[in-house]
Amino acid sequence: MNATQHGYASDQKRIIARLNRIEGQVRGIRQMTENGEYCIDILTQISAADSALKSVALLLLDDHLHHCVAKAAAEGGTVADEKLAEVSAAIARLAK
Amino acid sequence: MNATQHGYASDQKRIIARLNRIEGQVRGIRQMTENGEYCIDILTQISAADSALKSVALLLLDDHLHHCVAKAAAEGGTVADEKLAEVSAAIARLAK
Amino acid sequence: MNATQHGYASDQKRIIARLNRIEGQVRGIRQMTENGEYCIDILTQISAADSALKSVALLLLDDHLHHCVAKAAAEGGTVADEKLAEVSAAIARLAK
Amino acid sequence: MNATQHGYASDQKRIIARLNRIEGQVRGIRQMTENGEYCIDILTQISAADSALKSVALLLLDDHLHHCVAKAAAEGGTVADEKLAEVSAAIARLAK
Repeated sequence: MNATQHGYASDQKRIIARLNRIEGQVRGIRQMTENGEYCIDILTQISAADSALKSVALLLLDDHLHHCVAKAAAEGGTVADEKLAEVSAAIARLAK
Repeated sequence: MNATQHGYASDQKRIIARLNRIEGQVRGIRQMTENGEYCIDILTQISAADSALKSVALLLLDDHLHHCVAKAAAEGGTVADEKLAEVSAAIARLAK
Repeated sequence: MNATQHGYASDQKRIIARLNRIEGQVRGIRQMTENGEYCIDILTQISAADSALKSVALLLLDDHLHHCVAKAAAEGGTVADEKLAEVSAAIARLAK
Repeated sequence: MNATQHGYASDQKRIIARLNRIEGQVRGIRQMTENGEYCIDILTQISAADSALKSVALLLLDDHLHHCVAKAAAEGGTVADEKLAEVSAAIARLAK
């Protein structure tokens, strides 16, 4: 399987770059904690990483809807039902 | 337009019943505040109403995906694109 | 017990007015559902009511911190520990 | 400044270990994306990392309340007001 078979091919580079940055943010948060920095400053960075992570999820979800879900819906039947149930569960986890 | 043209016809009664309950919950929260009840008890009720509201949104979203979005996706073209962009924005508001 | 013994006395009117509005918003959402209005329009209203509910919670929490928690913390001992554990749990429910 | 002056000294190791794990989770999500894995599987991992990040924030917040905020509240005056306003803003960012 590769990205072209999934919806995010056109955004793959952008998503990878953002995830790289988020990995760096989390590393930075760990170093702040190791250095004993002030709680609120660490919390501020966690909220920023959390928002960045959520926006990557929304981008992936948008691609998934536009490609995998749309294709399955056009096909109809159980293929569509499975894809729709799957994406609904993913949205519920995200919106929790 | 009525519910049958939208996806939630089969869940309409259930959604209305839940919204009725949430309306009652919010009224109860207001009465607790008028009676000067303890902040944490009021906050607990607000979290419960918030979860109930979010679960109604997820039910509506699931119905919308299964009907309106699936139908538009099967149609394809700009109809599908508009519906997909619209539902993506609704998901982003919910997951905010 | 009344509001003056809890932290939100100075905001009580404001909180009650907002809760009144949210109650009206939820009633409006129910009527939109009864009228079979479009799913996305209903979802938009739910997100608005959800945000309004969360902002009431944050106002109450702020008052609670400034009064009940601050008072208990000044007292120290188990009174403070209980209040701090209680508010931490309320925050966790809200941030869920 | 070090952790003992801030509230999370007793949890510092635990928080660092969790942040290490989350950093690994984000790296894993990036590798899944590079390998073109299925969108929903990536979304599932993002939701898991998001929850892990939020629980670190709640642990830090709990420590901060129990130590920095409680100490400032006992002191009273502007020191307390600043600390309370600061933690309220951090909670709002987290609950957004």
